[in-house]
Order: sequence, then structure tokens, then C-alpha cells
Amino acid sequence: MNSRAFKVDKLPSIKRLPAYLHLLHNLASDGEEYVSSNYLAEKMQLQPILVRKDLELTRVSGTPRIGYCISDLIKGIKDFLGWDESVDAFLVGAGCAGSFILGNRDLMGVGLKILAAFDKDPRKIGRKIHGVPVFDWPRLRELVSRTRVDIVILCVPPDEAQKVSDKLVAYGIKGIWNFTPTNLVVPEDVVVQKEDLASGLAVLSVKLNQSHSALKEGTFP
Amino acid sequence: MNSRAFKVDKLPSIKRLPAYLHLLHNLASDGEEYVSSNYLAEKMQLQPILVRKDLELTRVSGTPRIGYCISDLIKGIKDFLGWDESVDAFLVGAGCAGSFILGNRDLMGVGLKILAAFDKDPRKIGRKIHGVPVFDWPRLRELVSRTRVDIVILCVPPDEAQKVSDKLVAYGIKGIWNFTPTNLVVPEDVVVQKEDLASGLAVLSVKLNQSHSALKEGTFP
Repeated sequence: MNSRAFKVDKLPSIKRLPAYLHLLHNLASDGEEYVSSNYLAEKMQLQPILVRKDLELTRVSGTPRIGYCISDLIKGIKDFLGWDESVDAFLVGAGCAGSFILGNRDLMGVGLKILAAFDKDPRKIGRKIHGVPVFDWPRLRELVSRTRVDIVILCVPPDEAQKVSDKLVAYGIKGIWNFTPTNLVVPEDVVVQKEDLASGLAVLSVKLNQSHSALKEGTFP
Repeated sequence: MNSRAFKVDKLPSIKRLPAYLHLLHNLASDGEEYVSSNYLAEKMQLQPILVRKDLELTRVSGTPRIGYCISDLIKGIKDFLGWDESVDAFLVGAGCAGSFILGNRDLMGVGLKILAAFDKDPRKIGRKIHGVPVFDWPRLRELVSRTRVDIVILCVPPDEAQKVSDKLVAYGIKGIWNFTPTNLVVPEDVVVQKEDLASGLAVLSVKLNQSHSALKEGTFP
């Protein structure tokens, strides 16, 4: 079995879970105890039936006319994602992308805990970026073996990505969150999640073109 | 018709087009003229049939035993996405996320051109970040009306996002690339593309949990 062949059912639902978590945390801090699927649907800009389907992943049931218990839903989402404790990770490459992720309050809000960053730039080593200590690259091997961290956030230049990935795999890392444009080749028991910002720009561009055409053709109501 | 109701067919294929573009540019700069779907499939870690389906969007046909003409494919992808000229945009909020995007070489590589950034921090105004000038927020209105830019990359704090979005819409912006966790409410002729980094972490977490379970249960070959 190839790691790329993992069948992840309900991928769109899984992708929306962090946004529900964000909303539910806001409601809880406003003192709310229950929430309806209609309210969540409005905020998420989805159909209520899709919201109920998404939340089936958590195995938490709503009560008619009362809604979902917010604390149960928060727990259900965290349990499903394995985010009941913090998600510990290291970050490799503390440049622009790395600094952005280190300072991202939304990621910290869902429980991501970056224990250390690694870089080869002597001006960064020994400093802290957004509170996270930056170490020299050779210390990564030692820290991976001393801790139980198995996720690395990869933010190195594209032409170094495969070489660095090979080392990470040799050190025992099992999950790579790839912010480089390089398609990494990894063994079957290693999971890679690749982020490609240009994908979002492509979708925006196509939707904008469609919108322009609709305006020109007068097909807006 | 609601802007959120745009039916964008073949969304996964569209999302992969920038990655093809990246590969094709690399091949072209290596002096290659033709590429097979099998080669692209291997690099993209996809089935060849899916590659051929993706590339149907470009209306460029491959020739048996020769493959696709690389320059035709590049042109076909750019035409489809409307990226034949540069994609001009403004950026609002030059903090961590904003700086990351301003310095993102991959986005520049696919033709994104950020003409100006806007912030209210006096320490940033008048400076350049990665070569892009930072202006005071009030100048945005004037620059939107003077140029034909209709895309804004939104990187402000979450609690300011809706207020800023309302202003952008009033100024005539038609496309908002939303890097905040806020679900923006916009009129029907405005397109919003929301990026949520935590989605990627959710997918990575679920895949890792599956991989761990498979290892424990010995279902790896």
C-alpha cells in the first residue's frame, strides 16, 4: 500500500472541521452552551443538511429545538482529528513561510504547538521567532529522537526540499506538512500533506472569470 | 444567483493546474520541448488517465509517442486561468501573512503581481516589503479607482476582516482572496476565495492517524 493511496473519506468535511472549531470556540467564550445546525450553516455559508453531515464525523447528535451541545461538539471534533492534546511539530526553514506559520494565531488556536524551528542561517540560530527557539539544523536529529514529535512543517527552498525530506524520513519523521512546491517522494509509511497557495489563486481566477462573463451576459438577476 | 453558488466544475483539476505550470516551466528552462502524460503523472503522483483529464481543460491535445508540446500546454493553462497576462492585485494588511505572500516566489512565478500593499502601521507605511511599496490605508480607494485591479489579498486581523471587506466592496473590488479565518459576507457579484491553513493540518492529522492504525494492525504489506 502506498501512502499516497490512503483513502481519506469525506475529505471536504474533514477540511471544514477546523472552521467549525473556530466558530464553536467563539460561541463558548461568549458563554453559549448550545448551537443549532441552522446557525452554523449560516456562518459557514453552507446548507444545513451539509452541516449535519459534516458533524456526523464527530458522532455527536443534536437535540431537536435545542441543537448541539457546544462543549460536546468541540470535544468530538478534537477527538476525531486527534487534536485532544496539542499537535506537536518541528519546523524546518525559518524564512518567510516559516515565520508566517510560527506567528499564525489560528493554527495555534486549533492546538498546533511548534516546539522548535531549525535553520542554517547563523543570524537566526539561537534566537526566538514568535516565541519559538531556532536551532542549528544538525540538532534536529537529536531532538527527534529525544521527543515523540513525528510531524515536520517543511518550509525550505524548493531545490532543497527532497534532500531535506530524505533526512527527515531517515530520522523517523512520519508526517511532512509540505509548504514547498516540490512533489516529495517518500516511503509508503510516511504521510505528506502539500500546500499550494497558487491553487487558491487558480480557483479565484476561474470564479472571477465566470463572474465577469455572467455580468457581461446579463445573467445576474 | 449568489456568488457562493458558482458552480466551478472540475475544482480538483483546476487546483492542480498551477503545479503543472511549475513543472512545465522547469522542463522548458531545461530546454525540453515535449512531455508525456506518464512523466507528468509520475512527478504529480497521479494516475496518467487523471493527468490527461486535467489537461483536457487546456484543450491542448497530446500526440501519441511524442506527448504534449510544452509551450502549448503552458499557454493553454495560462489561457484557461486567465493568467496569460500578469494577475494584478493589492494586498491589505502587511503583517506576518501579508509579508509571507509578498515574498512568495512561487506565487510570483505563476504571474501574481502585487502592485501595492496597505497597512495602518506608520512604521511600515512608505517602506517596501519584498520590493512592494506599503501605503497608508486611505490611499487604497484612490488606487483602486485609478487602476483596473479588482483582486485584493486580505491579511488583516480576523476581527477587522468583515469591516475591511465591506469597504473593499464599496470601492469596487470584485475578488477577495481571504487569508483570515473570518467567513466574509459579500454581495452576489463579489467572489471570495478563503484559505484555511488549519484544513491542511486536519487532513495531515487524519492521514497520520490512519497510518498509525495500519501499522499497529499490521495491514502494511
